[in-house]
Amino acid sequence: MKRLFTHTRILTMTEEVAPSKTQAMLVENDKIAWIGPEEEAPMADEIVDLRGRLMMPGWINTHGHATMTLLRSFADDIPLKTWLEKYMWPIEARFGAEQVHWGTMLAATEMVRCGTTCFADMYDHMDGVAEVVQESGLRASLCRGVIGLGSQEERDWKRKEAYQFAKDWHGRADGRITTMMSPHAPYTCPPDYIEEIVADAEELKLPIHIHLAETKGEVEGHIETYGMRPVKHLQLLGVFNRPTLIAHAVHVTEEEMEILLQHDVKISHNPGSNLKLGSGIAPVPRMLAKGLRPSLGTDGAASNNNLDIMEEVRLAALIHKGSTMNPEVIPAWTALQMGTSYGAEALFLDHEIGTLEVGKMADFITLDLEKAHLRPAHDLISLLVYSASREDIQDVYINGRPLMRNKELLTIDEERVLFEADRTFQAVAP
Amino acid sequence: MKRLFTHTRILTMTEEVAPSKTQAMLVENDKIAWIGPEEEAPMADEIVDLRGRLMMPGWINTHGHATMTLLRSFADDIPLKTWLEKYMWPIEARFGAEQVHWGTMLAATEMVRCGTTCFADMYDHMDGVAEVVQESGLRASLCRGVIGLGSQEERDWKRKEAYQFAKDWHGRADGRITTMMSPHAPYTCPPDYIEEIVADAEELKLPIHIHLAETKGEVEGHIETYGMRPVKHLQLLGVFNRPTLIAHAVHVTEEEMEILLQHDVKISHNPGSNLKLGSGIAPVPRMLAKGLRPSLGTDGAASNNNLDIMEEVRLAALIHKGSTMNPEVIPAWTALQMGTSYGAEALFLDHEIGTLEVGKMADFITLDLEKAHLRPAHDLISLLVYSASREDIQDVYINGRPLMRNKELLTIDEERVLFEADRTFQAVAP
Ligand SMILES: [Zn+2]
Ligand SMILES: [Zn+2]
Repeated sequence: MKRLFTHTRILTMTEEVAPSKTQAMLVENDKIAWIGPEEEAPMADEIVDLRGRLMMPGWINTHGHATMTLLRSFADDIPLKTWLEKYMWPIEARFGAEQVHWGTMLAATEMVRCGTTCFADMYDHMDGVAEVVQESGLRASLCRGVIGLGSQEERDWKRKEAYQFAKDWHGRADGRITTMMSPHAPYTCPPDYIEEIVADAEELKLPIHIHLAETKGEVEGHIETYGMRPVKHLQLLGVFNRPTLIAHAVHVTEEEMEILLQHDVKISHNPGSNLKLGSGIAPVPRMLAKGLRPSLGTDGAASNNNLDIMEEVRLAALIHKGSTMNPEVIPAWTALQMGTSYGAEALFLDHEIGTLEVGKMADFITLDLEKAHLRPAHDLISLLVYSASREDIQDVYINGRPLMRNKELLTIDEERVLFEADRTFQAVAP
Repeated sequence: MKRLFTHTRILTMTEEVAPSKTQAMLVENDKIAWIGPEEEAPMADEIVDLRGRLMMPGWINTHGHATMTLLRSFADDIPLKTWLEKYMWPIEARFGAEQVHWGTMLAATEMVRCGTTCFADMYDHMDGVAEVVQESGLRASLCRGVIGLGSQEERDWKRKEAYQFAKDWHGRADGRITTMMSPHAPYTCPPDYIEEIVADAEELKLPIHIHLAETKGEVEGHIETYGMRPVKHLQLLGVFNRPTLIAHAVHVTEEEMEILLQHDVKISHNPGSNLKLGSGIAPVPRMLAKGLRPSLGTDGAASNNNLDIMEEVRLAALIHKGSTMNPEVIPAWTALQMGTSYGAEALFLDHEIGTLEVGKMADFITLDLEKAHLRPAHDLISLLVYSASREDIQDVYINGRPLMRNKELLTIDEERVLFEADRTFQAVAP
């Protein structure tokens, strides 16, 4: 099957050049086969006229908990400890397969509408999440996050479940699903448990996804318990001998950033969630200056409260300028890379996605730029970061398959999802 | 003319209560005449079924420069001084009546789509701005901003022009236009010039709108030149003897906030612009703790880069939590007030707009909440601030007159505006 997409301005994200004229792109089955001037376009089975819209790689969300979408607006504007202990954990303990299924379906619906083509997810009941990915046509990097605070027995079965899930699902759904191993965080997993999980990851040849240095209190507690900061500790535990993605990294020192760089550790910067929970502002300009390439994540919708990577791109471009009082840090182009190509790197998928290039998977979105809030169009890259929003997204393709066309969802029954999400929450409501 | 709006959840913004069921609202000509249960609704000439949508007061944008919308994405990610001197000022010097007209029309188009029903504008060629307000049906608080750095002659005619504009247009367009007097900023107006303009304001019984303490360098320069910080200086110059609205107030001390409170000075907090230009983060939680009631502004689209107050509401609710590492500052309800009722106070229009109450002008918007990113709806107030966006806005009414219905613009020829905005910019392009 060859599909030719015509009349589109293509932002490939391979170099900082805003497309000045329309081009065409040929997709053969699930891959990009050709990009070039329309008059030189090869033959195809189907031609899709994109009406002058902008085409770019889909957004990549490198950290989240899709099921928590059921807890959007459930508890806000309260201290993290109360939020977790009084609100999140008690209700999450009542979640079962049904909540995971419909919570993730709700997240999938929102993500497709937001132009997200690939997301990372860390939760439990992960078979349910994987099934939604399979059904919906999204791409995802999934892991069963494990907390090692319970009995030895509980620790054992959780670890086994995480291992089994990662093994079973890696490479499934036409390659759209990849997996990682995930000790939830240094403050929820004792050191020996982390080492065991690293050994599992080594055996499965899979990367690690872990929360790290989200709050100041967490880092202080770590120093108190282990006599060292968490980055150094994870290094000593051998975590960074595996390819690793850390979420948050809000409270990291220059020395810790050096360790992360040395091991090529990937970072998921979650500005919306970090701001909303009062966790602080990660030193992203310093990370970039050192050569780290932080990506972007929304975290769960309970602490964001949406799953919109375009908003995280804008926040990343804005808040660090304000907090450092320097308008030159994180220019628009860098913010776009954080939402696309750096995201692909963070999920160890940059050989497949993150840019539009011949040979890569056809994961792309289009935006309608014929809007008052996008005029005049002096600079398309600036417009995308500082002016555009999810409402401008028209089409979403993953592996060459349309998930949304002209704002119509093709793989998800949206009305049913809205209904079932409410119903399944009510079934466990306090 | 009596219009009854039925089947709508009404967030009046008078008290922190999310509407739990649908109600009806009667609008008689331009005013709200009745709000109550649908079964008790009075007779009307026309019934508008709002299909369960949320109704709330329109957003109020308390600081901006509409014409600068022509400079959206024209120059970004560079230091303020270069941005102003190399990019903004040279091109603005070439703007004439045509650029002001179509730049403001473009801004009006975007603002209506964003649910803004009232905006403050400071620029020159203000007759052109007022005409757009008159035509489009928007409400606005307008002032001819004057810079007193030129010759005595230039100073004199600018002051006279500002005086004449304020006098001519105050109360016009069925009362939708009010005016202020505006010395541009302490660093662009010598003290005696400011005093003259205050005298003009006193004569006309009008408020003052002025930029203040936007950057650290500006404050340092002020101390160097005048031996005191700018708030104290403006107090001594008698500015605060008039009702006053200051824009930005990023770099103000506790003592300065006390002076502002003492004189009931209104504040326009412009988080997007302050972040993007690297100006810093205003001490809004401290302002609120003292009893000041800061409103929200976008500033010009050249430094934002859009005119979306919902985004400023979200930024206000997020960035101060992050920068103070306290998730309890600026809760969702306060952020909503900043975008509505505090905005009305800032423009000295709280007797007419800012809340939905019998006797007030019928300025309201509706939002469609039947969307994946707004589910589940555990808390409507949280959803509005942290999850919703301009794409959810369906209807916009000002003075009881529809400007947008089901996303269709009724007073603006959008296609022509997009075309003319590009054309008039090209006519003066460098
Ligand atoms: Zn997380
Ligand atoms: Zn301004």
